[in-house]
Amino acid sequence: MRTITVVVWASLVATSQAADTKKASIAAQYAVDAQRIIDAALASNDAYAKLQHLCDEIGYRLSGSPGLDEAIHWAAGAMRADGQENVRLEPVTVPHWERGSESLMMNEPKRVPLAMLGLGGSVSTPPEGITAEVVVVADEGELDTLGDGARGKIVLFNNPMPPYDPTHGAGYGRTVRFRGKGARIASEKGAVACLVRSVTARSYRSPHTGGMGYGDAKVKIPAAAVSTEDADMLARLSARGVPVTVTLKMEARTLDPKQSANVVGELVGRTNPEEIVVIGGHIDAWDVGHGAHDDGGGCVTAMEAINVLRRLNMIPRRTIRVVLWTNEENGLGGGKQYAKDHADELANHVAAIESDSGSFRPTGYGIDCVDETRESIAAEQMREIIDLFTSIGPMHARPGHSGADIGPMKSAEVILMGHEVEESRYFDYHHSRADTLDKVDPAELSQNVAVMAATAYILADMPDRLGTRSGRQQYNAP
Amino acid sequence: MRTITVVVWASLVATSQAADTKKASIAAQYAVDAQRIIDAALASNDAYAKLQHLCDEIGYRLSGSPGLDEAIHWAAGAMRADGQENVRLEPVTVPHWERGSESLMMNEPKRVPLAMLGLGGSVSTPPEGITAEVVVVADEGELDTLGDGARGKIVLFNNPMPPYDPTHGAGYGRTVRFRGKGARIASEKGAVACLVRSVTARSYRSPHTGGMGYGDAKVKIPAAAVSTEDADMLARLSARGVPVTVTLKMEARTLDPKQSANVVGELVGRTNPEEIVVIGGHIDAWDVGHGAHDDGGGCVTAMEAINVLRRLNMIPRRTIRVVLWTNEENGLGGGKQYAKDHADELANHVAAIESDSGSFRPTGYGIDCVDETRESIAAEQMREIIDLFTSIGPMHARPGHSGADIGPMKSAEVILMGHEVEESRYFDYHHSRADTLDKVDPAELSQNVAVMAATAYILADMPDRLGTRSGRQQYNAP
Repeated sequence: MRTITVVVWASLVATSQAADTKKASIAAQYAVDAQRIIDAALASNDAYAKLQHLCDEIGYRLSGSPGLDEAIHWAAGAMRADGQENVRLEPVTVPHWERGSESLMMNEPKRVPLAMLGLGGSVSTPPEGITAEVVVVADEGELDTLGDGARGKIVLFNNPMPPYDPTHGAGYGRTVRFRGKGARIASEKGAVACLVRSVTARSYRSPHTGGMGYGDAKVKIPAAAVSTEDADMLARLSARGVPVTVTLKMEARTLDPKQSANVVGELVGRTNPEEIVVIGGHIDAWDVGHGAHDDGGGCVTAMEAINVLRRLNMIPRRTIRVVLWTNEENGLGGGKQYAKDHADELANHVAAIESDSGSFRPTGYGIDCVDETRESIAAEQMREIIDLFTSIGPMHARPGHSGADIGPMKSAEVILMGHEVEESRYFDYHHSRADTLDKVDPAELSQNVAVMAATAYILADMPDRLGTRSGRQQYNAP
Repeated sequence: MRTITVVVWASLVATSQAADTKKASIAAQYAVDAQRIIDAALASNDAYAKLQHLCDEIGYRLSGSPGLDEAIHWAAGAMRADGQENVRLEPVTVPHWERGSESLMMNEPKRVPLAMLGLGGSVSTPPEGITAEVVVVADEGELDTLGDGARGKIVLFNNPMPPYDPTHGAGYGRTVRFRGKGARIASEKGAVACLVRSVTARSYRSPHTGGMGYGDAKVKIPAAAVSTEDADMLARLSARGVPVTVTLKMEARTLDPKQSANVVGELVGRTNPEEIVVIGGHIDAWDVGHGAHDDGGGCVTAMEAINVLRRLNMIPRRTIRVVLWTNEENGLGGGKQYAKDHADELANHVAAIESDSGSFRPTGYGIDCVDETRESIAAEQMREIIDLFTSIGPMHARPGHSGADIGPMKSAEVILMGHEVEESRYFDYHHSRADTLDKVDPAELSQNVAVMAATAYILADMPDRLGTRSGRQQYNAP
């Protein structure tokens, strides 16, 4: 086998060298490099060990918490220990919301605790809680139909998230709006508190939290998620005409904003260091699970991607910059601050890739750019690149969603890319206590490192800038 | 279609009548009757409505709790309202264990609450809790190997339950022993408390409780289950040599025994009322979920089985007796008391069938009798009977497990039978907060009613007594 390997290797190297012309396809130019990176990443990388430390020894890391500070300093230290360049913290001011004690007790028809999690950003209840009858609505229309019927009541938005299916994907986007705006619209109708069915299609009585906002609400009412099981029960009782009263207690409070930071580290480019490919995830996580899939996995994938390249001594023409954004979950402070701080060099950002959909088997990239022509060229180029990863599994590259933290960079210059993964189980764990390390398969995490490392390397090294084609559009590298 | 139906019907009736001889097979004798029962049960029955009331409006019903009293009186009332005969409560003294407040906090390497549930029967901790280092063992052998290493520590038994597979079934029986005896054997080694990995193969950070006992332990130490995720984390930290300390707080207490009752109701036989086919489930349930699958579903299946027969005016030769046993979960008081109270008539118990494996799609029966010849004849007869149910799905009948509550009736006379169901998901919910109504499919629940009603009817009506064959063994009905 060794002989054969050497022969193939030599032939591929020859192809690669011959291909170093404008006309050779990206795939032909980078086949050998991509395979080297994939082999190295799959054979050995420290992503799982890093994620293990982040989950087991740090864990909770919501904005403002000591856990987030610890995670930020640990990540910077780990990148320094790996020998990355220009490792630094870029300051970001973040909101500081704390959950405190909380509970939801059904009083009628029976006294029983319900499984709940307060929503991030909610105000507290009075210490004795808010006790009121529950009215159940499916959506905005049913709330409107109630007329004055929500006044003085606790409104439950019971809109089940559709289960994942291969055609429509996860149903998250179709029902998450009640979590975000439910309290505001219930308050407008005179409700005294708001409950939202957890945004998940599977539950073992496991509530899912998430961010909410009051917008221009005149009265801020407390808001909490209940498990799908409890939402179902409240809805059944209500449909049978059984009066339901509950007591919601929440100590949630918003404190003064705190200093936090984006964590940055680089593999500096060998010929065009001022041009940048950003890769990253967000270092903050909700205060209930350990943020293994959301988004510890994204962070360590990016950290390890440049580590694999450095160990291989594969330094691309351009710089690959790892950014671990802070405060994605309840403010997007890190993403906004990065775009602001780096406004002057955004034109030099070739691409920004975020992994924030979990660390299941990688499936490809969503591509997003203000300039539709560039987006379309980038998608074409990415399709050539992902063809090099089919040994890992089927891959796609198509215009679509990228990532929350890179959104503020959206412009004609920067191609935004979402690192996508198999998503059938992500929302089972997302924002819940169940987002723990055991849900991440080490082999799949390594596949993500392989794909992200190879992608970043090619984008940082290929002669054409992503989204441009020599001969078709100006190639703007020197 | 109506014409065809009538023709088939007439031909089956003819077969049934002609078959009323000793030589006709059970299947031939009861094909028409079985189909009538199945059609009626699948078309309409109140099992789901009953289960809904039991779960939503009563819920928790551990021995000694007001919920159990309420459930018992509700069940008797429901059977009376259905027109059942001899509806009564048969007194049983049951243990009274209360959970109280409880928590498990990891102190090192980070302060974070772990997902736990105290085990039923455990003693409390002091009010300030028990704080100690955690030592992790997989089994009895590893505990022994520790030597004096468990002294003063909290022992975690981390023995993962194997996932369900079609060949081996659920892995519950292979690891549940640590829940039962873990505290006793850890105490022998000087441990100060015992943690047990939840006995489930799937978890969303959802701990599973269950009964435990101290046996002849000199020192009773508190015992609690932790979620599989937390057990995994403690085991990983321990394996990496990271010192782990936790604080376990439990207010659990055992109070004076309380009066409870088995609930009994009958469809009295038309010619041999003194001969009895018992069907039932247990009315108590752990104090965390709503006992939908364990064992509300078994109770309402039995209640509704005789209700379907009564509505069809199908009164078999023998009596069908519904028994809803109390205190299965932490004492088996109901099952023991029933066998004692009815010792004089046990010889007249043709069969006792328990449904206590959940209310998923029915799959057949396990059969158990001290007399192996009778067990084997009963299995043969049951295979004929279940052939009538194949429109519902594949069915089996084989010697095997029956049910905990009918176990005390085990004898040469009584054929014990376990009503079995598809079991791939049962232990995901079992003894956890997730055992709620939404996990029960109304159509599958009706299938259980159909199979149990038809089985009970045939066993209570067929000329041969189950486990005997005319001409081969004495038929002992008059």
